[in-house]
Amino acid sequence: MALTGVLRPGHVALRVMDLPAAVTHYTEVLGLREVGRDASGRVYLKAWDEADHHSVVLRETTEAGMDYMGWRVDSDATLDRFAGELERSGLASETSWIAAGEHLATGRRFRFTIPTGHAMELYAHKEITGCATGYLNPEPWPDGLQGMAPSRFDHCLLYGDDLDGTVRLFTEILGFGLTEQVVAGPDKLQIAAFLSCSNKAHDVAFIRQPMKNKFHHASFQLDSWHEVLRAADIISKKKVSLDLGPTRHGITRGETIYFFDPSGNRNEVFSGGYIYYPDKPTITWTDDQLGPAIFYHDRKVNDAFLSVVT
Amino acid sequence: MALTGVLRPGHVALRVMDLPAAVTHYTEVLGLREVGRDASGRVYLKAWDEADHHSVVLRETTEAGMDYMGWRVDSDATLDRFAGELERSGLASETSWIAAGEHLATGRRFRFTIPTGHAMELYAHKEITGCATGYLNPEPWPDGLQGMAPSRFDHCLLYGDDLDGTVRLFTEILGFGLTEQVVAGPDKLQIAAFLSCSNKAHDVAFIRQPMKNKFHHASFQLDSWHEVLRAADIISKKKVSLDLGPTRHGITRGETIYFFDPSGNRNEVFSGGYIYYPDKPTITWTDDQLGPAIFYHDRKVNDAFLSVVT
Amino acid sequence: MALTGVLRPGHVALRVMDLPAAVTHYTEVLGLREVGRDASGRVYLKAWDEADHHSVVLRETTEAGMDYMGWRVDSDATLDRFAGELERSGLASETSWIAAGEHLATGRRFRFTIPTGHAMELYAHKEITGCATGYLNPEPWPDGLQGMAPSRFDHCLLYGDDLDGTVRLFTEILGFGLTEQVVAGPDKLQIAAFLSCSNKAHDVAFIRQPMKNKFHHASFQLDSWHEVLRAADIISKKKVSLDLGPTRHGITRGETIYFFDPSGNRNEVFSGGYIYYPDKPTITWTDDQLGPAIFYHDRKVNDAFLSVVT
Amino acid sequence: MALTGVLRPGHVALRVMDLPAAVTHYTEVLGLREVGRDASGRVYLKAWDEADHHSVVLRETTEAGMDYMGWRVDSDATLDRFAGELERSGLASETSWIAAGEHLATGRRFRFTIPTGHAMELYAHKEITGCATGYLNPEPWPDGLQGMAPSRFDHCLLYGDDLDGTVRLFTEILGFGLTEQVVAGPDKLQIAAFLSCSNKAHDVAFIRQPMKNKFHHASFQLDSWHEVLRAADIISKKKVSLDLGPTRHGITRGETIYFFDPSGNRNEVFSGGYIYYPDKPTITWTDDQLGPAIFYHDRKVNDAFLSVVT
Repeated sequence: MALTGVLRPGHVALRVMDLPAAVTHYTEVLGLREVGRDASGRVYLKAWDEADHHSVVLRETTEAGMDYMGWRVDSDATLDRFAGELERSGLASETSWIAAGEHLATGRRFRFTIPTGHAMELYAHKEITGCATGYLNPEPWPDGLQGMAPSRFDHCLLYGDDLDGTVRLFTEILGFGLTEQVVAGPDKLQIAAFLSCSNKAHDVAFIRQPMKNKFHHASFQLDSWHEVLRAADIISKKKVSLDLGPTRHGITRGETIYFFDPSGNRNEVFSGGYIYYPDKPTITWTDDQLGPAIFYHDRKVNDAFLSVVT
Repeated sequence: MALTGVLRPGHVALRVMDLPAAVTHYTEVLGLREVGRDASGRVYLKAWDEADHHSVVLRETTEAGMDYMGWRVDSDATLDRFAGELERSGLASETSWIAAGEHLATGRRFRFTIPTGHAMELYAHKEITGCATGYLNPEPWPDGLQGMAPSRFDHCLLYGDDLDGTVRLFTEILGFGLTEQVVAGPDKLQIAAFLSCSNKAHDVAFIRQPMKNKFHHASFQLDSWHEVLRAADIISKKKVSLDLGPTRHGITRGETIYFFDPSGNRNEVFSGGYIYYPDKPTITWTDDQLGPAIFYHDRKVNDAFLSVVT
Repeated sequence: MALTGVLRPGHVALRVMDLPAAVTHYTEVLGLREVGRDASGRVYLKAWDEADHHSVVLRETTEAGMDYMGWRVDSDATLDRFAGELERSGLASETSWIAAGEHLATGRRFRFTIPTGHAMELYAHKEITGCATGYLNPEPWPDGLQGMAPSRFDHCLLYGDDLDGTVRLFTEILGFGLTEQVVAGPDKLQIAAFLSCSNKAHDVAFIRQPMKNKFHHASFQLDSWHEVLRAADIISKKKVSLDLGPTRHGITRGETIYFFDPSGNRNEVFSGGYIYYPDKPTITWTDDQLGPAIFYHDRKVNDAFLSVVT
Repeated sequence: MALTGVLRPGHVALRVMDLPAAVTHYTEVLGLREVGRDASGRVYLKAWDEADHHSVVLRETTEAGMDYMGWRVDSDATLDRFAGELERSGLASETSWIAAGEHLATGRRFRFTIPTGHAMELYAHKEITGCATGYLNPEPWPDGLQGMAPSRFDHCLLYGDDLDGTVRLFTEILGFGLTEQVVAGPDKLQIAAFLSCSNKAHDVAFIRQPMKNKFHHASFQLDSWHEVLRAADIISKKKVSLDLGPTRHGITRGETIYFFDPSGNRNEVFSGGYIYYPDKPTITWTDDQLGPAIFYHDRKVNDAFLSVVT
């Protein structure tokens, strides 16, 4: 196969403080479909064009944020190989195996903590329950969509301290490409890194910041700038807390809008971007251009956007 | 790297009967940029968001059609490995090595003929001359675009007899995934195959048809359905021969328009589609749904679209 | 008031052969809302952004087509004045008054037949029941829309013989402007006329053709080219008979798609166009450019589009 | 004619502090075409789809702002009638006649000051030099557009003290309709009024504010939300001062972006809206909903937007 190793961000597990309110948000506002609940009360959801059983897991607790992000790898052999390499790398800590079935419809997962403090996991099996339009003479989109109705979970942006270590882990061990970066000061310290295991402009991104294990946003894909406007309208119609947008990012050139779930976890829906290849030169933004890098139209560094995390 | 082996369709070499008219078409109508001419008179062009030196090569001769399609592989080692496997496979014929420099700015290429009669080539090196917006604090799109201004060359659709052999070559040797197929009759004979070496819905596609080595179209990527309308307007403003569209494909669900270059080679510009992964189930269309499979809105089999090839 | 006299096309009364099928089409496919039924079984519908009680009336009978088109005038005084002028003009025939209440929620109507054989009526009163978003802190669009969900009934295109007489009636008596026309042959015979009583590119249009009183289509307004694509998708998803599109008209430069109700009455949904003023020069199309005038991208005279009427 | 009296906002005369910089802005960024300069050095411009000679006039002086706004009326008779009614109304002050030719290609103008302190003028004649696509078999859009390339000058928003008097003048004398209003406090004091002489959602609007004769923005029409994004990109590419957007207004539901010319005069480009009729109920916004009324997505009262005027 031409796509090997880590195939995609397969799930994000979020902590919410009011599960019914969160489920209403993720189904009626964002427009995912609930696909199951497990014995511990976690709620599993997916977007309409995803083949896998689920891509979002919600857990009720007293503090918002991200529990972990899961990555689908191409095979058991790759899973074992990566687990071994991560164990030996010195970059991963708190490594452990989670038994098959701990997540609904999901095989064994290798859990580890990356240098920025975030929990990540790799897995090779999750039941393919199919997308909403099926695989035989499919319609281009399904009936009965509600809310913003993104086609897929796309990526997360995370904040943490040891950006260098995390970038090394993703690029040197897991084979990601560095698609874009922001560098600051005369020494061109890398303060943001956008990483891809695919043709997408990013599958995960990190910002250098003093605290470990902070969550900035989980992002979902829309088809067009027109759908970004519709999402913006839905945010107001449903009295959802808007963060920023609609606008365009300089980084990735995506068209975007940010908002918050009822627990304060930030969501993004976006469209556009470009096709990335591993031999494409990395795009570098200098900190004097941080404004347009983040929000291309405003061109201003927005403190709330940079500092509010869960 | 997560993307390995064959990375992308790197170039398509087209035969045209009037080179100046063709260059005018591919630059002013389609909106590529001419990047060079070689000693044999061939003209090299690229789209604005492509990093590589070129993606389209035009050669003047007495008959239109496609000379060959070239694929960028990830390394010299992969190039040698694939060359060996193709030699041994019994699926590739007329194999040969073309010396570095035969194409401007391009390394050695391994040329071979696939069972449907089309010439293909693999290469590991082509000069990265950069996209039009650069890699330091880039704008989202460059100034001075003309015509439809696609961001990339995307794929070709080709017609030929031994579809089974060609699909085996691309999937079993080169590692492509079968994203969609059309099957006909009670025996579900595969009559069309869409193949991807990436997250794209297709990088090349083939239709079963009695004659060898026929070219249906070369396709270029636009950002939105709005740009498809603009392309349609340009087709009429510039008195270009329209084939079909604007419309949507059932297959790939892309938004599309088809037209002809002055020699009768069909071009497509399109937007949309989905993100493909190698474990995504293949979408199958049955021949009773061939109409919506091809043109989702018309839902009619269009003879000219199916039969006019070069 | 700056807008006086005839304000707008207020309703179109269509004949259908299967009322339940028609109601399903006009509500679930087109996306109007049923607002009432009268004692004679007629069904009244309106689009979501219309203030008036209804804009479409469906009557079941054995033959499809248009019964009449109704025009809202600014006052009773204007209604009486136009009735008198039409009576005296020699251009209107079969004049009559229809009592208030014959249409639900509608005042008296002055009915007359125009030289092309179509029944028209003027009225000054129809109950304003309000648009779906209301008039106090309204949302930009309502929840619960289904189908294509146009904002308004926009215009009709009608076919008939005495185009000259009909154009005189609308321009000389009712004060419409001739926004665009098609002229044919060395004598520049007017074969199509587009007429506006507003800032719209047309409120009604006529094609010269031998038979009297033929109906080509009733048209409804969408917000964008993106919604035209969505309408095209709905046509295929719901197995509706497509006529033509999505494409652009040369005339009015609107973005459009045509389809048929279950009785064979043609519908259009469209977006775009321009702002018309009565002192704007009339746009003239010559018959050698009839192709792009009608369908700008195809640039071909389409026999079915020109000849299939009800 | 169905459109009578005041037909449209025909021109806006703006004061700029650096004429060459302003001309560069209005031609290369906004995308108007310069059509002439007069003996006093004023520069005349128009948008591509306007038939009249000009719609924007720039005058260099030491302070930015609006000199006056001009309205095309349907005839000399109407011009004389309105002049007389305005003289007698007690609502207009500083009335005067300006001779034909004082503006290039323009007939005599009746100048007056409205209760909010703004200079307005009426005129019946301006040379129709035609739009860029002409009136014989026109293309849907012209070649050679630059910048945002709006199709028309659309409206102004003005700030002043005696809102009641100005609304009376426009509605009672000039026949405008009140399309939307904002009311504040228990007494529902009208603090904003949107006025239309056409089917447009507004041709001019006023905000109640203590100072006389303040200019908030001049607005120009785009075709789509996609063009609003393109305008936003151009603002950043050309380093223009952005005010706000892209976003949607609650009022008029238009899609919009605001920015400043080099002298600090605010410009808007927008798309969308609805079709207004004089019998459409006025939309009322209450001051507790002022946030979404102005910027539907942010839903926040923006002090800079409300207070920065020229």
